[in-house]
Amino acid sequence: MSVSDAFLLKARWVLPVEPAGVVFEHYSVVVQDGRILDVLPSATAVQRYPTFPSVSLDQHILIPGFVNAHTHAAMALLRGFSDDLPLMTWLTEHIWPAEAHWVSPAFVREGTLLAAAEMLSGGVTCFNDMYFFPEEIAEAALTVGIRACVGLIVLDFPTAWAANATHYLDRALVVHDRLHGVPLIRTALTPHAPYTVSDAPLERVRALSEAWDVPIHMHVHETATEVQNGERPLARLARLGLLSPRLVAVHMTQLTEAEIDACARTGVQVVHCPESNLKLASGFCPVVRLRAAGVNVSIGTDGAASNNDLDMLGELRTAALLAKAVAGDAAALSAHEAIRLATLGGAQALGMGGEIGSIVAGKAADLVALDLSGLATEPVYHAASALVYSAVRTAVTDVWVAGRRVVHNRVLTTVDTSAVLDKARAWRQRIAQ
Amino acid sequence: MSVSDAFLLKARWVLPVEPAGVVFEHYSVVVQDGRILDVLPSATAVQRYPTFPSVSLDQHILIPGFVNAHTHAAMALLRGFSDDLPLMTWLTEHIWPAEAHWVSPAFVREGTLLAAAEMLSGGVTCFNDMYFFPEEIAEAALTVGIRACVGLIVLDFPTAWAANATHYLDRALVVHDRLHGVPLIRTALTPHAPYTVSDAPLERVRALSEAWDVPIHMHVHETATEVQNGERPLARLARLGLLSPRLVAVHMTQLTEAEIDACARTGVQVVHCPESNLKLASGFCPVVRLRAAGVNVSIGTDGAASNNDLDMLGELRTAALLAKAVAGDAAALSAHEAIRLATLGGAQALGMGGEIGSIVAGKAADLVALDLSGLATEPVYHAASALVYSAVRTAVTDVWVAGRRVVHNRVLTTVDTSAVLDKARAWRQRIAQ
Repeated sequence: MSVSDAFLLKARWVLPVEPAGVVFEHYSVVVQDGRILDVLPSATAVQRYPTFPSVSLDQHILIPGFVNAHTHAAMALLRGFSDDLPLMTWLTEHIWPAEAHWVSPAFVREGTLLAAAEMLSGGVTCFNDMYFFPEEIAEAALTVGIRACVGLIVLDFPTAWAANATHYLDRALVVHDRLHGVPLIRTALTPHAPYTVSDAPLERVRALSEAWDVPIHMHVHETATEVQNGERPLARLARLGLLSPRLVAVHMTQLTEAEIDACARTGVQVVHCPESNLKLASGFCPVVRLRAAGVNVSIGTDGAASNNDLDMLGELRTAALLAKAVAGDAAALSAHEAIRLATLGGAQALGMGGEIGSIVAGKAADLVALDLSGLATEPVYHAASALVYSAVRTAVTDVWVAGRRVVHNRVLTTVDTSAVLDKARAWRQRIAQ
Repeated sequence: MSVSDAFLLKARWVLPVEPAGVVFEHYSVVVQDGRILDVLPSATAVQRYPTFPSVSLDQHILIPGFVNAHTHAAMALLRGFSDDLPLMTWLTEHIWPAEAHWVSPAFVREGTLLAAAEMLSGGVTCFNDMYFFPEEIAEAALTVGIRACVGLIVLDFPTAWAANATHYLDRALVVHDRLHGVPLIRTALTPHAPYTVSDAPLERVRALSEAWDVPIHMHVHETATEVQNGERPLARLARLGLLSPRLVAVHMTQLTEAEIDACARTGVQVVHCPESNLKLASGFCPVVRLRAAGVNVSIGTDGAASNNDLDMLGELRTAALLAKAVAGDAAALSAHEAIRLATLGGAQALGMGGEIGSIVAGKAADLVALDLSGLATEPVYHAASALVYSAVRTAVTDVWVAGRRVVHNRVLTTVDTSAVLDKARAWRQRIAQ
């Protein structure tokens, strides 16, 4: 082991997520070979690890990297393309036609590069994606140095990626094989939504997810329209055997008490996308009731075309604020709880709770430092509160993924940001015409 | 007139607010003697004003400065002091005892310095304040170079500022006299809330506001508790003759259709504080219904103790997102409308709609430049959308108040930020003990 593979991060505050509700002051995180070796007071750390180089984070809070539990990364190229419209108008009249025209391997690669660069800069160290051309998604993630759960999409209708449900599933098999075992990359099956995938492919998805032991990542009960007529989508998914801890159900704004109980009983994972749900007027996910029932809740930004950013710190702040108003209880979803949803909650949803999501010895060193000094965050009485209720994404100064420093003093070390932006602007030129 | 009093701001985009819904591309704003002289295409501007020095804002959008229509600036010293509690517990068990112990002229001066520095850095050029020791508020505002409407507070109960309602009113008279005519400073009468001020002082407030032609800035219908028993506060204010265009009613989360009509009929100004209302689970202000009825709505951050920042860009984003969900209409409160509420809406609420709030020849040159380039805002299809839905407060690079450049490349030109922060940290040391 070379010295550079081992180092100390000496932070003013460490918020480990596990144990819950704790902030350690003047603590160090020791990293070796990409993993967390130790978490201990800095005064002790320098004695115990005297040969380890250290990074001083004197005004910073060190947290586990955010897990963005739902996004369509490449859609960053369509950020702000169309706004202030209801979900179905926005999808069918604006986004889907634009995608039909523009989505290609290059679009996905360059869009995901932009998105992954934005996410890392904002402290996201892992994202759960659903889009087309999944090998391009994986390549872009590896280029930027971010962890990704790459979705293998399934739809009934044709797109640039596949012609019909069977074709999507065939391509999923090929890509799953190719990506299997690639460091930082996992796969999930991503049937788009109940209203876009019929029973037969959903049954195939269930069988494959069991065989591969990978998540099923799906939009479920996003809007009131979706649950208006006939069998409710969750009932249909139950009938098809899809309710299990492998189901990562996104949005879930329309839920009866019986459905919340069913999710709790079967271990369904819920991804809350508060800003997307607000912006598209989709409804309110009952986060507090879900958590009270024992359901694991995580947080996603959704794609930048609907949000319009991939800012997990902003998203967890919105989640914390909104949960209080929806529950009618100012004590609901505290700062610590919101951070947990955005880190360990996401890790658990993806079946990676033993690997990432908290600062615990043995886990991967996916770590984020945020500077809490400054006019809008000081004075700091409680670091968790300052992080959630006062800081913005530009407070992120340094990011490590599996021990690799991918953001250093607010600069990405893995890609040339200006080249990524030039490509994004070139896409805009073409698309806007 | 010296050359330095006249200059051109050449921007990639200018969002003037008036006319509504418009973004000018490659436009210049011409400033002379603290006022806007002209707004025209940059190509023409350099020909028409060849001797004027210019500032290039090639990646920026230039907007009117934000008007923070409700805050308690000095409470920035209590930012994050106590969180995740309902309004009355938070007020009576945490904030009021802390204030009783700590509020003093120095607390208000140094707290307002911190707040004003934070606000200017985030593009706020005018704030409407309600706190104690109003001359200290004015002095801090002038030191930082921000415009302020200084509240002359009225309460029934004693504080460090006054002993009883008569005493508050006596002091209001003195301060109003002293501040009258001071550039950048206006005053308002600020009876705290219906539940803290009895009829006699409210009648005196009404008479003074008519005599002085100044606003009455007051918390009204903040929570459901407030309207539960007996005469509704708005009915009481109507009975006392307070409903008029001079009433700046803050929060207004509990409103019947009849009350909305009464506000429209009498010209009451409503200040929406979405993040404070969410965080304290106070309820939802019916912004869309108020605007449809013809009520002028503006936006306030509330104090940093309840929010926990003074970030108007974040606040108008939350307002835009939340309005859609509350109205059940994704087309509600568009990006352009949200910007209007946060600028001209606030100016009109304070009776300053002819002076500030839009980029129109003749108005004061209160201007803000925000850099829209970067990983989280590009590509830019629509600059208003990028500003509202993608940018964060650190996009603000330059700010002018009455033509004076008070923020230059993200640095305050008027105060030493590190000294302001040192004082804030010293207060935290004492208060946290």
